[in-house]
Amino acid sequence: MPMVNQKFGSIVVNLRKSKGLSQEDLAFELGLHRTYISQIERGIKSPSLRVIEKISSFFELQLSELFKLVEDE
Amino acid sequence: MPMVNQKFGSIVVNLRKSKGLSQEDLAFELGLHRTYISQIERGIKSPSLRVIEKISSFFELQLSELFKLVEDE
Repeated sequence: MPMVNQKFGSIVVNLRKSKGLSQEDLAFELGLHRTYISQIERGIKSPSLRVIEKISSFFELQLSELFKLVEDE
Repeated sequence: MPMVNQKFGSIVVNLRKSKGLSQEDLAFELGLHRTYISQIERGIKSPSLRVIEKISSFFELQLSELFKLVEDE
């Protein structure tokens, strides 16, 4: 899997923990499966743009802001 | 399909045309099917992060720069 998925996953972990949420909590908030969140966080699934946008909206980031974090990871 | 896919698709069309490429050319360059490029451009497929990164690299944009274009679309 490309590096970008791993970097993206790390940022999701950071954002999730900064809100004190479990994978289960985040999955519930986003209407996704906990397993899928876990795979995204580990960089073994490449999230679709639809899912990326759900994540950025939930954390109140613009997509460009979210990817700035990914680039700086 | 969410608006973000449609905005993303429009940006891909603009970038592709700015290089004078056909969908076929771009598909070849990215190692993807022409049909998939067409679906992304029409916003009816939500590209994966892996594919989004291929597109941004090909057009020599950072992911955050690409999404700035999408936000301004």
